[in-house]
Amino acid sequence: MSTDLPRRSDIESAAVRLTGKIRRTPLLAVHGEELGVGARVLLKLELTQHTGSFKARGALNSVLTLPEGTRGVVAASGGNHAGALAWAASLAGLDADLFVPASSPTEKIDRIRDYGATAHVVDGYYPDAYEAALEWSDDRPVAYVHAYDRFSTVCGAGSVGLEIEEQASDADLALVACGGGGLYAGTALALRGRTRVVPVEPEKCANLHAGLAAGEPVAIEVGGVAADSLGAATIGSYAYETAAELDTEPVLVSDHSITKARRWLWQRCRVLAEPGAATPLAALMTGAVTVHPGDTVVVVISGGNNPEVP
Amino acid sequence: MSTDLPRRSDIESAAVRLTGKIRRTPLLAVHGEELGVGARVLLKLELTQHTGSFKARGALNSVLTLPEGTRGVVAASGGNHAGALAWAASLAGLDADLFVPASSPTEKIDRIRDYGATAHVVDGYYPDAYEAALEWSDDRPVAYVHAYDRFSTVCGAGSVGLEIEEQASDADLALVACGGGGLYAGTALALRGRTRVVPVEPEKCANLHAGLAAGEPVAIEVGGVAADSLGAATIGSYAYETAAELDTEPVLVSDHSITKARRWLWQRCRVLAEPGAATPLAALMTGAVTVHPGDTVVVVISGGNNPEVP
Repeated sequence: MSTDLPRRSDIESAAVRLTGKIRRTPLLAVHGEELGVGARVLLKLELTQHTGSFKARGALNSVLTLPEGTRGVVAASGGNHAGALAWAASLAGLDADLFVPASSPTEKIDRIRDYGATAHVVDGYYPDAYEAALEWSDDRPVAYVHAYDRFSTVCGAGSVGLEIEEQASDADLALVACGGGGLYAGTALALRGRTRVVPVEPEKCANLHAGLAAGEPVAIEVGGVAADSLGAATIGSYAYETAAELDTEPVLVSDHSITKARRWLWQRCRVLAEPGAATPLAALMTGAVTVHPGDTVVVVISGGNNPEVP
Repeated sequence: MSTDLPRRSDIESAAVRLTGKIRRTPLLAVHGEELGVGARVLLKLELTQHTGSFKARGALNSVLTLPEGTRGVVAASGGNHAGALAWAASLAGLDADLFVPASSPTEKIDRIRDYGATAHVVDGYYPDAYEAALEWSDDRPVAYVHAYDRFSTVCGAGSVGLEIEEQASDADLALVACGGGGLYAGTALALRGRTRVVPVEPEKCANLHAGLAAGEPVAIEVGGVAADSLGAATIGSYAYETAAELDTEPVLVSDHSITKARRWLWQRCRVLAEPGAATPLAALMTGAVTVHPGDTVVVVISGGNNPEVP
């Protein structure tokens, strides 16, 4: 395939660009015993990032690396990327036009406007919003910013990996959720040769699993409790290539285990993660990923944009 | 007055005793500009502590310093202390009997049982539960553990101050909520001569303010949005003595500003604090406490045991 994967130096450049603009999210250390494992567990509270998810990193890096003369950014999204891009554009003094399917919750639409962006509500579903966004962009000096399958987005997300290295240099393993795979690709490439990064997918959103089985990214049907944040139909080419090159298999977890992990985060840590963000913790709690006594495991809690208390 | 205030060495001993058993809660750095101030702001996410509040520290330190032969602990509480004491007792292998007024929410009663303690539901209000707890304790080899006005509780809470010093040695100011005053007294005594600690009270729970005006702790009427965690009628003697000795006036904030600070924590940081825990942030956001550009200010977000999303 032709996808050029980011090098560590690309991710380092992104991290420098983002310094002081994104939050360096903290680690919460918990006893592995509480989770039924021998390892030392560090939860990276990335839900405390601007806009409530790691997406702020990729969106801002994308916005800050646009060609001269770009006046605004456009995307179709009703989820975390929409809020992140609205925020990033406002920081950079650019217009942002977000095309949102009418099925999106009012709260998310309000949030886009809250960050000063324009929300275009489109009848229908995501593909309709995507079509409308492309049509609107035509002949305008604006850039379409993809939610995950974009070099600059992956590099921005990779800054999570560099932070993990700084905050927990002894980490043996990092677990991250994988939807479109921007977070996985960025983190794994940042920590390549240093710390093993394992992508975790809900069984019902297993697009990386399906892609690796097929030998290329393929569209699948997605659903389940974490589809709002991890429900990309096709794995991104960066994530696919990263997993193939690093010979990494994703770990799959059930919806039931995701819900249980999410409840644990709330009840035992007062961390209100969205279901997708509890997915890597589910891999640890169910034993789907093997850890050894004495290991240090970082679990990225990637977002908190679901206010339903479990 | 006769209250012997804890020395720094008492608090250091407590911290050693608690090491590895309580969580070292992380700091989240946010830009002061986001809050309308020039200072660097560090939110100490103490709501991620075991049992969802700083109370775990004092409860565990109390439990671990009981006289030989004590078989169990007792308290009247429907709030954060009840859950904390239930947890601490289970860790120490002691029985815990918590007397809860029937007016307490079912959720909090369930939580006590969830930590393996016995919840005695008493008809009426807090004073009735308190009476019942004392009566029940009579002739039993158990200890009544006060929620805030106890030497060991104050020393345990003071470990928050020592952590602040380790995590942010350049802190110029720490803001903490003040209800019964265990957290304030412990933190201020730990950081005495190092970092200024300012207690913040809701206008409607201003028992320290009232006590200092009267020249001694006095019972007041309490109410408002933060009464569930900060609604002690009388300031504890440790907190009163600490404020008098350090010549510190509490800062008062309105219910409206508390609600606004709580909403900011959720909307901008995905931190779901209880109203009492948003109280010190309200002092910063309203300008009720003066900070200077370049200052480093630590704001303790002391608990998260209110699942209502703002």
